[in-house]
Amino acid sequence: MVEHGGLDVMCLNKYCSSSSSSSTSEKESKLFKQWKVNLTENYPQKNAEILSAQYGTLLLLIGISLMLAVTNGEHSVKEEHLMSFITTLMILQLLWMLWYVVRKDRQGSLVSEKDAHAGTSWVRGGLTLLALLSLIMDAFRIGYYVGYRSCISAVIVVYPVVHAVHTVSQVHFLWFHIKDVIKRYKTFERFGVIHAVFTNLLLWCSGVMSEAEHYMSNHNRRLSSLGFVNHSITEAAAEESDLDCNCTTSACTMFSSSLYYLYPFNIEYHIIVSAMLFVMWKNIGRTIDHHDSHKKSTSRRAGLIVGPIMGLLALASTIGVLVVYSIHVEKSEKMRESAIVMFYCYGIVLLALMCAAGVTGLLIYRAEGLPMDTSKNPSRQLDGGMLLGASVGPWLMSWCSVVAVVVTQSNPQYRWCSMVYALLVVVEKYVQNLFIIESLYRKDDDKASPGSTGTATPEIFSVAASMSPPYDGIVNRAYDEQDKCCSGHRDSEQVENGQVYGGNRKPSEVPLPVGSLTNKPSRKRQILRNIAVFLFMCNISLWILPAFGVRPQYDNGLEQEAFGFPIWSTVLNFAVPLGLFYRMHCVASLFDVFMKV
Amino acid sequence: MVEHGGLDVMCLNKYCSSSSSSSTSEKESKLFKQWKVNLTENYPQKNAEILSAQYGTLLLLIGISLMLAVTNGEHSVKEEHLMSFITTLMILQLLWMLWYVVRKDRQGSLVSEKDAHAGTSWVRGGLTLLALLSLIMDAFRIGYYVGYRSCISAVIVVYPVVHAVHTVSQVHFLWFHIKDVIKRYKTFERFGVIHAVFTNLLLWCSGVMSEAEHYMSNHNRRLSSLGFVNHSITEAAAEESDLDCNCTTSACTMFSSSLYYLYPFNIEYHIIVSAMLFVMWKNIGRTIDHHDSHKKSTSRRAGLIVGPIMGLLALASTIGVLVVYSIHVEKSEKMRESAIVMFYCYGIVLLALMCAAGVTGLLIYRAEGLPMDTSKNPSRQLDGGMLLGASVGPWLMSWCSVVAVVVTQSNPQYRWCSMVYALLVVVEKYVQNLFIIESLYRKDDDKASPGSTGTATPEIFSVAASMSPPYDGIVNRAYDEQDKCCSGHRDSEQVENGQVYGGNRKPSEVPLPVGSLTNKPSRKRQILRNIAVFLFMCNISLWILPAFGVRPQYDNGLEQEAFGFPIWSTVLNFAVPLGLFYRMHCVASLFDVFMKV
Repeated sequence: MVEHGGLDVMCLNKYCSSSSSSSTSEKESKLFKQWKVNLTENYPQKNAEILSAQYGTLLLLIGISLMLAVTNGEHSVKEEHLMSFITTLMILQLLWMLWYVVRKDRQGSLVSEKDAHAGTSWVRGGLTLLALLSLIMDAFRIGYYVGYRSCISAVIVVYPVVHAVHTVSQVHFLWFHIKDVIKRYKTFERFGVIHAVFTNLLLWCSGVMSEAEHYMSNHNRRLSSLGFVNHSITEAAAEESDLDCNCTTSACTMFSSSLYYLYPFNIEYHIIVSAMLFVMWKNIGRTIDHHDSHKKSTSRRAGLIVGPIMGLLALASTIGVLVVYSIHVEKSEKMRESAIVMFYCYGIVLLALMCAAGVTGLLIYRAEGLPMDTSKNPSRQLDGGMLLGASVGPWLMSWCSVVAVVVTQSNPQYRWCSMVYALLVVVEKYVQNLFIIESLYRKDDDKASPGSTGTATPEIFSVAASMSPPYDGIVNRAYDEQDKCCSGHRDSEQVENGQVYGGNRKPSEVPLPVGSLTNKPSRKRQILRNIAVFLFMCNISLWILPAFGVRPQYDNGLEQEAFGFPIWSTVLNFAVPLGLFYRMHCVASLFDVFMKV
Repeated sequence: MVEHGGLDVMCLNKYCSSSSSSSTSEKESKLFKQWKVNLTENYPQKNAEILSAQYGTLLLLIGISLMLAVTNGEHSVKEEHLMSFITTLMILQLLWMLWYVVRKDRQGSLVSEKDAHAGTSWVRGGLTLLALLSLIMDAFRIGYYVGYRSCISAVIVVYPVVHAVHTVSQVHFLWFHIKDVIKRYKTFERFGVIHAVFTNLLLWCSGVMSEAEHYMSNHNRRLSSLGFVNHSITEAAAEESDLDCNCTTSACTMFSSSLYYLYPFNIEYHIIVSAMLFVMWKNIGRTIDHHDSHKKSTSRRAGLIVGPIMGLLALASTIGVLVVYSIHVEKSEKMRESAIVMFYCYGIVLLALMCAAGVTGLLIYRAEGLPMDTSKNPSRQLDGGMLLGASVGPWLMSWCSVVAVVVTQSNPQYRWCSMVYALLVVVEKYVQNLFIIESLYRKDDDKASPGSTGTATPEIFSVAASMSPPYDGIVNRAYDEQDKCCSGHRDSEQVENGQVYGGNRKPSEVPLPVGSLTNKPSRKRQILRNIAVFLFMCNISLWILPAFGVRPQYDNGLEQEAFGFPIWSTVLNFAVPLGLFYRMHCVASLFDVFMKV
């Protein structure tokens, strides 16, 4: 009997050779060596992924449990405990990044593969801007803590310093290494990258928590100035600013009030970084298909008139609404109601226009019938997933509003406006997600039409080869290999050399497509580009409003009546940050769409 | 200038032909036809997926917002509104299933492709058992409502009747159609399947909510009998049983108390169904690679001694713990404390054994170095994702316990036991997830060793073809096509004709592996099988305890002190259902592992 897979089988690189004549001690030493080899070089990709993903999740959960204990407010766990935990994680990440950069520099000539889709330069540019605002926030925080240094622990002062160093090094790391496809020391680097992902996620959570707390106390201050205060609300408000010493500098109030205008940027910074690092983590050990990306020579600005104008109008009216709302909502009951009505009217018009734009875009895609690009691209897959995931928050909020409008007894002016607004939010996100994802999965115009590039012959060749069901037996291997690179999935559509065809087409219908032989963009492309620009600006508008405190969901009282204060504030604490992230992410994706169309 | 992609381009099946001499009216009618074609036949897969996924998510969110309004308890939204919404969804699902079955029957000879991995017969068997228990629950519910018929609305009686019909038809559907890979009418069927997925998810949510409410009121009754009651708790307890008439039959109490023992089964039933339907949804439009699955002739029971014995011991001690805990925890303070200590000691021993078993399994895999199976398999991918996702709940609970033990002032007997238990829960899930996922991604023993099957020659052929870097120019297309089917992803490992090899192996090391030439299972296989059986039974044990009310996290008071009642009960309401689902899912996966090893 030959013992299968036993001690006498030595496995190197997953292929086994057997030696049947060996003594027990030799067997043991071999077994040890083999384990060592299996643990270091040969560790299966799937397992390494799960090992590190679980580690990251645990880090996040420890952080969240500390946060929950801090929010409880009984001060058994203090803010400094949470901060020292986060600081430790940031220092660990700094050490790992240092190690990575040094090791990569030493290897010198060994240039690793790059994923061209990860972190395009404009994403990195936007990120740098957000990082700068985060640094200003850190500076304000340091100033604030220095003022109160006599009564707060040193940990709280160390935190913004470490955070500033962390921000600078992380941006450096993202600029120069985010496209790397790591091929060696995989298991260790996987841990490093996932550590960075979850450290940023934890920083995001902590930012969201602070923001929600601050907004809540602000909201309660506003309510109490209007005279509606009940017991459960004042309790929460009392928790704020319980430092038992006075500020030693004159700038404390300035620092603390400006701080909260910078929070939204800091929050977005961390979530975007963690998404980028997640793509880097997914890329570890991957083999990239190299497509030639030819630069377009068409002018992007041709025909861009209606979109930008409408977008600028939307942006201008948004700023008007922001100013009027912020002033009116703190005044008398009647002023407040009119401010809310104004917000809903503005929102309904804007969302209706966005829906119309999105639907037009989708119809153009239907009319055009360009092929889809189904090649593997973790960055794009993540984009789609995050759009859908982030929509869940605002959608839940909208449905709660609809339920509230239907069931409540009170009948303010804005009751039905609120319902229409909520339904339009649902429809607009539905349409916009479809539009963005369809745009991202479309092939580039010039790549898709063989007439415009010089590679028409091999494409027709491979199409003919794949279309005729009984194979002729012999084909050129070089072309074939080219095919295999592209066919990530052999789903209902077959991807052949960058071109996609439906599976059930009859072989007789193979005329050459007549495409954009000239470089001038077609009418349809122009319309799509205008739509992208318009939606881009609308999403910026809809990000600005909640980010700077225009949140009628807190002020209109309908949902609070239907769901009660605890449930509704929980829903908002979940949904508002997701909503902000959704808008930010849409802005990034729509820019991508604009560059692609 | 030729207008690209404009009205004069007719696209059929994504391939375009141009006709440059056509009048405007002809153009318009063509455009209309083309849109129609694009919308029905040619709708891109990715978009259809997102269209239907968004629809499903919205259904779930509407349901959740209604549920939140019901839990508020101000009775603006009543239970019957929620139930009539769910009933409508179930009726729609019934109609869709009817349509599907009738249409499939009519097509007769047209046998569609099947996904062999989806819904194995033992999963369907287990499901049928759960469905039977759900039916009993429906019968009890009908009996209960009939007793109170004078004071409750008809909707509440209709609900269990429709649910029973829904259960029967759904089980029938799952038995005969779950493996179908749908290739026609894709967009419509996608909506049908996703509707079914989210209807079941909503039924799951509603079950979880009822269960949590019932457990909470039970817990409060227990607390009030012990004398610790505070204001916020009695309020919740008062909400239960507010019907304003008496039962007209004698069995109402019996029905309502037995109902709650059946809840856990109903909850598991719905979540498993939605997972199975989700796999069916992912399979729509997919092209399946046909591997020959050869039946194994080895006896599975050979060498199965230690695992089953240890497992039975664990199961027996679990039942003992269940009985003792349930009796003691309702008695005096001291008895309660001793019951909790007993639970933790039992838990620590069991979890430590499970960790040891899992680590042993992983070490065996490391020593064995069998190749991984990286072919595409949505069902397996989902399994892995759900294991990780469901772990998040119990992990969060554990870290909260650890934080609570560290920070609280009170010092009961079980303080440090609770911490050790929590940490072991974290480690055990970490190891078990790794073990299960590694087992599922391993190639079957007999498939992996070419020596045991008759297909050695083509495999070696294709290996040789793919290994030699400079292609010889001409290869047989038939073999090549076979390759392409299997290579779902060209990651770091290349999948060739069902066999996986590391990418960086030198061509000189190609000896034939000497595998299980005989049918007797090896020692290692025997150990793995014992481990799978042991873990299987342990997971059943750890499911039984919380499902039947042994939840020391409610009773020990440590976390409640550290986090406060509202936060901690929210964490538990999130984590306990996920924990139950995790155990159930592990049981299913470990059975799969046992069948595979």
